[in-house]
Amino acid sequence: MSPTYFIDALQNELSQLQYGQHPPELYDPIRYIMSLGGKRLRPLLTLMATYLFTDDWQKAIRPALGIEVFHNFTLLHDDIMDKAPLRRGEPTVHEKWNDNIAILSGDVMLVNAYKLLLHVEADKLKSVLARFSETAAEVCEGQQMDMNFETRWDVTEEEYVEMIRLKTSVLVGYALELGGLIAGADDDTNRHLYEGGMNIGIGFQLKDDLLDVYGDPAKFGKQVGGDIIANKKTFLLIEALEQTTGSLKNELIEWLQKSEFDRDEKVRAVTAIYDKVGIRQLTESRINDYFARGFANFDAIDADPNRKNVLSQFARQLVERES
Amino acid sequence: MSPTYFIDALQNELSQLQYGQHPPELYDPIRYIMSLGGKRLRPLLTLMATYLFTDDWQKAIRPALGIEVFHNFTLLHDDIMDKAPLRRGEPTVHEKWNDNIAILSGDVMLVNAYKLLLHVEADKLKSVLARFSETAAEVCEGQQMDMNFETRWDVTEEEYVEMIRLKTSVLVGYALELGGLIAGADDDTNRHLYEGGMNIGIGFQLKDDLLDVYGDPAKFGKQVGGDIIANKKTFLLIEALEQTTGSLKNELIEWLQKSEFDRDEKVRAVTAIYDKVGIRQLTESRINDYFARGFANFDAIDADPNRKNVLSQFARQLVERES
Repeated sequence: MSPTYFIDALQNELSQLQYGQHPPELYDPIRYIMSLGGKRLRPLLTLMATYLFTDDWQKAIRPALGIEVFHNFTLLHDDIMDKAPLRRGEPTVHEKWNDNIAILSGDVMLVNAYKLLLHVEADKLKSVLARFSETAAEVCEGQQMDMNFETRWDVTEEEYVEMIRLKTSVLVGYALELGGLIAGADDDTNRHLYEGGMNIGIGFQLKDDLLDVYGDPAKFGKQVGGDIIANKKTFLLIEALEQTTGSLKNELIEWLQKSEFDRDEKVRAVTAIYDKVGIRQLTESRINDYFARGFANFDAIDADPNRKNVLSQFARQLVERES
Repeated sequence: MSPTYFIDALQNELSQLQYGQHPPELYDPIRYIMSLGGKRLRPLLTLMATYLFTDDWQKAIRPALGIEVFHNFTLLHDDIMDKAPLRRGEPTVHEKWNDNIAILSGDVMLVNAYKLLLHVEADKLKSVLARFSETAAEVCEGQQMDMNFETRWDVTEEEYVEMIRLKTSVLVGYALELGGLIAGADDDTNRHLYEGGMNIGIGFQLKDDLLDVYGDPAKFGKQVGGDIIANKKTFLLIEALEQTTGSLKNELIEWLQKSEFDRDEKVRAVTAIYDKVGIRQLTESRINDYFARGFANFDAIDADPNRKNVLSQFARQLVERES
């Protein structure tokens, strides 16, 4: 069973999902944001994890889409909070409609996510929903931490990693754990699935920060240096603020405080500061640590080697991405 | 078992509820809004309904509080949408903190509501959560309809009643139904509980509209005529717009369009128009219809007469309130 096969099954079910009808102002935004696409990474991981332990992976399709709907709910509400104009190149819901509609259609998406998660066998329901609810609360905690960090310049590496763990990685972990829960895997296995997904997720997020500065412009989809231009508090910047001292630190802070600057010059100058204190190597080392932990989690899982290979290969692609 | 006894049990459990700790910006607003009080009407109804069929009503306390947390979540998000400065005489969450914190702490409240509802027996979980999720989506639909009505002057009685049914009454119905579900009552009984609560809820909401105009100033807590001054689209105004014709209708519309006016004069004039087309009698007749339907639902329930009496007496108080 290849990832493409799982993805097709997800897209087929997604195209038939009914979110609700009346009033249209409440449900059109849900259909809209769900139609903007995305890699459907989380539900795909759920199906792969289910397939590790059972041929009947199709029973995981609807609960898996519950995670996808939840993920899109967080994007919808985050976009309001960030006042983001665009999502995947299209107007965000609060721009296309308004803030109130975006708040309320997001609320009903969260309810819809639970509705989809109800489609698991009765004896799995309590653990599936208890772990989902914990995870969902953690995602909100991560988003609040991220907002809190906007006005702080003393964020530590530990705090930053905890923020991305909560905001993005626990849901990747839960996506895999959900597959284990649905397939009836044992607690140890489910813990390895969760931690494996979480560790790969943290590495993935740190790699996002790294590629924005050190990605190959020919392969990287976006403009290299965008985070530097925007003073985005990435792992690299937080480390540079921790690692630099004296005049080098002052130079970094000056660049952060400049309101007018040549973009290329700022990117070159800040990158040069990063280079001087070895930020690239430090970040790569952390990324490799998290990836290694994640693969160790997967290795510890007792399942059909061919099926494990599908998951590991897919995780390997995520890890080795250049864009 | 008197209502006071149930309320004490609810307050005791409420005072011990843990919503979460970190970051405080996420969880302080939840503790704040939950501490503002309120009659705890919905969870009280759940306990009364549970007690109709079992002595072990205490097992319903936590799920009942899930409904209370959900209700307060809707108040929190509605207050953002309505830009309301005050809730129960205290600053609203978005005023005391900000809109983003209000959105996000509301989101985690909805998750917390589900967490509390997970505390039902395993064999009840699916029906409890499926019906809750349906109800929660309907509450959002009602709120969206209410917002849509703000810019419309052609709302019909049918649309208005459907809006209040969804926005407020289905949750009252579900509060009672939840008690039946937890106690293991049969489907017919649960339907009567739900519809009984819903019908009383609609009557209650219409009485709210009525008292704002025709309440006894000595007994009514707020200023009589507040809805008229604010052009609030109540059942009375919608009916008056439907029932008046010619010069009387023009007079009504003129009052609605005036941006400067003497408040008492407007209240007197609009009330006089209501009186001319019998709005008070019409509204009272509708209220009595819904109350009668609700009590007929309760009558159809097969349970210990003394225990049914506690519920009916309490509903009677709600119905006969003067403020």
